[in-house]
Amino acid sequence: MFDAIKSPYLVPFDHTFQLETSPTLPADLASDLLNKKACKKALKAAVKEIAELQQILYANDYHSILLVFQAMDAAGKDSTIRHILSGVNPAGCQVYSFKQPSNEELEHDFLWRCVKQLPKRGRIGVFNRSYYEDVLIVRVHPDLLNTARLGRYHNITTLWDERYQSILDHELHLARTGTVVLKFWLNVSEDEQKARFLSRLQRPEKNWKFSEADLAERALWPKYMQAYQAAINATSKPWAPWYAIPADNKPYMRMCVAQLVVAALKSLNLNYPLVSKHDEKRFSVLAQTLTQ
Amino acid sequence: MFDAIKSPYLVPFDHTFQLETSPTLPADLASDLLNKKACKKALKAAVKEIAELQQILYANDYHSILLVFQAMDAAGKDSTIRHILSGVNPAGCQVYSFKQPSNEELEHDFLWRCVKQLPKRGRIGVFNRSYYEDVLIVRVHPDLLNTARLGRYHNITTLWDERYQSILDHELHLARTGTVVLKFWLNVSEDEQKARFLSRLQRPEKNWKFSEADLAERALWPKYMQAYQAAINATSKPWAPWYAIPADNKPYMRMCVAQLVVAALKSLNLNYPLVSKHDEKRFSVLAQTLTQ
Repeated sequence: MFDAIKSPYLVPFDHTFQLETSPTLPADLASDLLNKKACKKALKAAVKEIAELQQILYANDYHSILLVFQAMDAAGKDSTIRHILSGVNPAGCQVYSFKQPSNEELEHDFLWRCVKQLPKRGRIGVFNRSYYEDVLIVRVHPDLLNTARLGRYHNITTLWDERYQSILDHELHLARTGTVVLKFWLNVSEDEQKARFLSRLQRPEKNWKFSEADLAERALWPKYMQAYQAAINATSKPWAPWYAIPADNKPYMRMCVAQLVVAALKSLNLNYPLVSKHDEKRFSVLAQTLTQ
Repeated sequence: MFDAIKSPYLVPFDHTFQLETSPTLPADLASDLLNKKACKKALKAAVKEIAELQQILYANDYHSILLVFQAMDAAGKDSTIRHILSGVNPAGCQVYSFKQPSNEELEHDFLWRCVKQLPKRGRIGVFNRSYYEDVLIVRVHPDLLNTARLGRYHNITTLWDERYQSILDHELHLARTGTVVLKFWLNVSEDEQKARFLSRLQRPEKNWKFSEADLAERALWPKYMQAYQAAINATSKPWAPWYAIPADNKPYMRMCVAQLVVAALKSLNLNYPLVSKHDEKRFSVLAQTLTQ
């Protein structure tokens, strides 16, 4: 079973993760790491490796990778996904963005709509938001349980722990059956979000990204941070780790995510499958018939 | 959370279920229970109750019922499903028969194809075969792991226990989120199966049901019984109980299953949802506008 790649941003498994002390910029501000050019170069190298490793993943056809992205608005989920998978064969990738649940989705348990979209063997699947929304936005807005017609049935004091347990069990099942689950929380600061919202309001080519509702959610920042901290602490496990990635500097963030994906793929020690001795002989016979 | 309905056929939760001593005919052979007419009458009454209770289940729109049927060939899965749900509004029922997995299904973990078919809230879902096949037929024929391209990866000594654990966690999640899971093992004897196969071979209108492959599986009877006993013992829980129903007498079997479904539905204590005082007032105003 997969074992988490070590990193300064790996969320520990002992429930001690403190969101307040989790950096939104890397500690070593003066270092080369924040040099935009250096980050872009490192990202490019990592993307090339992902593309190569994904081919082997596909040829092996056993493991799959699930990358889960969660973050406050404007943290850079979409652009990170675009950047780290830009060089990869789209046939081996499945990206799914979870929006407000549909009526059909609300007719099922909260994991159902995400299970349907799990990547096939040999593929890299990406969840842009996920079942974690059901312990994040729904925890900040418990009225949403009424929308899902669950309000009058659930015991709100035990609900979140029950959902964490369902998530833990689900991710352990995925890990057991060959899926590597990597979860990224893109940790953007309140100030940086403000700057990005202003840019969306002021620059015409970014206007389309802005929604007035985003400001209402921003006003609930402390509640969201509580919900994130609780959920991330409850569900970071060696076989399905959370990484809290500093998100105020986009090139650095993308590089970090890409390098963790590379390290995870490498840790599987995959090679192109070897054919049997029998097939090897048969192949040389077949090659002969082609060259005659 | 749902708590198992008591019954002489309830599989205990302490792993002591012995398939050998589990009856294929009810103990009291001389009683009225085996009177075909009495069973049919009781079945009819139960089906009527299921139809009524299903309407309330639908109106409540919170719980769903999942009926899982597993059995050796010719035990009567199809006809039992047909008989117990024949009076129920089809809009509130979803029956799914799981055959040999498709290539797409084999690209996912063994629970995936069944999760996709889970009943919506307020519905009765029926699985004719299920994810249990992956610890039954696959355990009897471990070569099928190669078909699913899992053979070379899995540790066969731990695989079955891991799959039981995934099933347990999955069913607990369903129970937590409002689905009542009832599992029926239709316990047909080897002799009765022989008689039913002969009838399929000899009676033209039953010929279509016969497949030569069924005889090969019949030859593996003791291996199947071992796999059933292990799986049933590992996964009978108060919130997702197994019932080992004697299946040599079809009218009796159908009556038993139908009565357990009725009892389970009743145990939920559902009523048609009451409208609020506010809505009640509004309704009388609206009724007035209609009668003016």
